[in-house]
Amino acid sequence: MRYEELTIEGRNAVLEAFRAGKTIDKLFVLDGCQDGPVRTIVREAKKGDTIVSFVQKERLDQMSETGKHQGVIAFAAAYEYAQVEDILSAAKQKGEPPFVLLLDGIEDPHNLGAIIRTANQAGVHGIIIPKRRAVGLTATAAKTSAGAINYVPVAKVTNLVQTMEQLKEQGLWFVCADMDGELMYSQNLTGPIGLVIGSEGEGVSRLVKEKCDFITKIPMFGNIDSLNASVAAGVLAYEIVRQRKFAKS
Amino acid sequence: MRYEELTIEGRNAVLEAFRAGKTIDKLFVLDGCQDGPVRTIVREAKKGDTIVSFVQKERLDQMSETGKHQGVIAFAAAYEYAQVEDILSAAKQKGEPPFVLLLDGIEDPHNLGAIIRTANQAGVHGIIIPKRRAVGLTATAAKTSAGAINYVPVAKVTNLVQTMEQLKEQGLWFVCADMDGELMYSQNLTGPIGLVIGSEGEGVSRLVKEKCDFITKIPMFGNIDSLNASVAAGVLAYEIVRQRKFAKS
Repeated sequence: MRYEELTIEGRNAVLEAFRAGKTIDKLFVLDGCQDGPVRTIVREAKKGDTIVSFVQKERLDQMSETGKHQGVIAFAAAYEYAQVEDILSAAKQKGEPPFVLLLDGIEDPHNLGAIIRTANQAGVHGIIIPKRRAVGLTATAAKTSAGAINYVPVAKVTNLVQTMEQLKEQGLWFVCADMDGELMYSQNLTGPIGLVIGSEGEGVSRLVKEKCDFITKIPMFGNIDSLNASVAAGVLAYEIVRQRKFAKS
Repeated sequence: MRYEELTIEGRNAVLEAFRAGKTIDKLFVLDGCQDGPVRTIVREAKKGDTIVSFVQKERLDQMSETGKHQGVIAFAAAYEYAQVEDILSAAKQKGEPPFVLLLDGIEDPHNLGAIIRTANQAGVHGIIIPKRRAVGLTATAAKTSAGAINYVPVAKVTNLVQTMEQLKEQGLWFVCADMDGELMYSQNLTGPIGLVIGSEGEGVSRLVKEKCDFITKIPMFGNIDSLNASVAAGVLAYEIVRQRKFAKS
């Protein structure tokens, strides 16, 4: 499924976007195309650590809005990404222990937007998303965030597990939600925390789950599997808010 | 905006749907059209308490999928509605004090679907929605509910305030969320309860708010106005779950 909305097409336009320093989430290049301009574009993409996919002409034609893609289509982020350090500084500036959300493969921009909105309201200092198999800061995500995207730093990282290791060195604990976890109300969710939200279809991936310090559980009494990802993020984030700011003792 | 997905067009098809007892959420009729078949359809609609809108030809043409509406288009519910009494019996059967959600004008079927999903998981006995200015059980709402629509009774009522009065006689208390409310963590949200969720744009309407016994507040630390409606419903429903089932009195 394609959610991105800032599409840049054609060799000159794409190359210019890279050279102007625009954040390109994904680059699609006609498979087998090896001429000079295309090679330059791919080189620029690799400098900026953009994900490059080599695809068939039919795929490009399908994605193209103008019909004139000349073998290259780029999806630009509608908003700029932050660095992980920006998130930690935001916490420091407020004098609060870090409260970070890690989204392990959220694919629906409406969910991402709703989670950014929740993050702002719950006092989360920032959100970390992976580069691959996840939606970025598209126009739809921005719109669904109801303006919160302007206030919540979102960092995009190549390897979520590595980032978790680095953040652990800075004192963060990680918790993810799964049915085999401890009930969230009786678990201690205070202190510097990274809350991991799994993807819509698959939940939290194995490697990320193994890296978590705790597994927690939202009690569920229903006949179905799970909650909507943005609702689960909201329920968990607010349990953290309750324990951090409002719990007695 | 139009979300409904089960569209029935043309005089015979619409009349047949009414006579077969299908639940029609809304009927659109060409304004000024007064011939026999159309009058019969409008009469059937009024019997079943369907909302009838008289609209211009352009509007019908726009809504039409087949291009052959013959002056009438009906939006059928993708799922059957329950009665308010069914919701109370569900609570009784489980031996629990009623826990009901009232949606005061939710318009986005994705929000409705996500709320139905949350309701199932949080052990809500049923959902009440108004007939007017709200989305019904469309195919999109059903899909977003991830199957929960098969387990959660949803009743549709003409007048939300009247229904609240009737439910108060049965011992329910009503709470809605607003920024001038008491902090949800310190408010007693146990007992037979109706949780009112406002619409995406307008929040809880004045008359409904006046009929509420308590106003409660989700703490918000952000720069924007509110949470997404389905996230707010999830956070509030789970605070009720915590107090009902997990609080140490």
